[in-house]
Amino acid sequence: MEEREEKEEKEISQAVIGRLPRYFRYLGELRDDGVERISSQELSGRMKVTASQIRQDFNNFGGFGQQGYGYNVEYLYNEIGKILGLDRNHNFVIIGAGNLGRALGNYLNFESRGFLFKGIFDCDERLVGREVRGVKIRDIRELEAFVRDNDIEIAALTVPKASAEEIVERLVRTGIRAIWNFAHVDLNVPEGVQVENVHLSDSLMKLSYNINRYMKENDR
Amino acid sequence: MEEREEKEEKEISQAVIGRLPRYFRYLGELRDDGVERISSQELSGRMKVTASQIRQDFNNFGGFGQQGYGYNVEYLYNEIGKILGLDRNHNFVIIGAGNLGRALGNYLNFESRGFLFKGIFDCDERLVGREVRGVKIRDIRELEAFVRDNDIEIAALTVPKASAEEIVERLVRTGIRAIWNFAHVDLNVPEGVQVENVHLSDSLMKLSYNINRYMKENDR
Repeated sequence: MEEREEKEEKEISQAVIGRLPRYFRYLGELRDDGVERISSQELSGRMKVTASQIRQDFNNFGGFGQQGYGYNVEYLYNEIGKILGLDRNHNFVIIGAGNLGRALGNYLNFESRGFLFKGIFDCDERLVGREVRGVKIRDIRELEAFVRDNDIEIAALTVPKASAEEIVERLVRTGIRAIWNFAHVDLNVPEGVQVENVHLSDSLMKLSYNINRYMKENDR
Repeated sequence: MEEREEKEEKEISQAVIGRLPRYFRYLGELRDDGVERISSQELSGRMKVTASQIRQDFNNFGGFGQQGYGYNVEYLYNEIGKILGLDRNHNFVIIGAGNLGRALGNYLNFESRGFLFKGIFDCDERLVGREVRGVKIRDIRELEAFVRDNDIEIAALTVPKASAEEIVERLVRTGIRAIWNFAHVDLNVPEGVQVENVHLSDSLMKLSYNINRYMKENDR
């Protein structure tokens, strides 16, 4: 037990963390298909990463005890789930009830992972009072009280760049634990507030870079 | 000229590419603020990456000729834009006219970078014929003809996992250059079709990992 905890306390790179959800997804599918054991070679074939990468990644967490005959799928799925914090629920709210905010509210997928959609806020009076998947759109003025009273850990930010900073300051004062940022700006938050950025324009530009590079290399 | 091209043909890591849009964004803001020159130290302070990282990244592209007195902001902005393929327009379509698809269609930001929203498709007859920012929602059966006739390079995929594979096969046959994938599944595409994944659940799980880790380390 103690040895295990010591291993977990090592600083694990965000690159490794970034790969864990994908392992979790594949293992969930294997489990749903009734597969009980899988070797790192088989997993490697499905996921198109090398078996040595898989073993290296898993070694960060003590290796999950692969025997000669592979990993136990159910066990591995559950362990990675625990590492990802999916063994308990996380309440979240959405700031901004535009198309993107409503899209996030409607994702049933999140619910099945334990991310519970509790509230959605907007400053547009025409939206306030409507519902997104049974959750009432509230006035942004109710934000602080709601976050405090409903044990909200995560706020998804789908507001324009211009209002992002003010909203983030307000969220930070409530003691929010994490911000899932879709606003096209980098946020300044104190240590202890986790930020995950989804910069859609950046991802589109990466795509156009790769289109260009391929065209140059292949004279298309 | 030839030396420059040789440098660009080196394989540049996706990690470096992933940072370019952020440089581009900051340089655009500096330019809009009327800043003419900036040193790697100043840029480092604003962007919270080390100056040595900045210089290393830029050296992949020949360094952009920093003199003792810094980089020319306008020049650097334009050069990074060219590398990202932003010196020409890219037509894109959206497959799936749900909330997420409509959100992407409404992003004016993309337009200003030269990503032109040309079409949106759905199989739901109740949606077909409606409009998203002046663009008519078309029946998915029109997909192939539309992509071919309108010089479409990029398809944003916002359909459920179950239909993703079939749609991707159809897109690949049209000769599409890139797929911007929001479906919660990894795609199989031939070489030459670029894929950029936005797996929202994965990004949410990364956030819950970081919440958990911080709580453990700080006994919160």
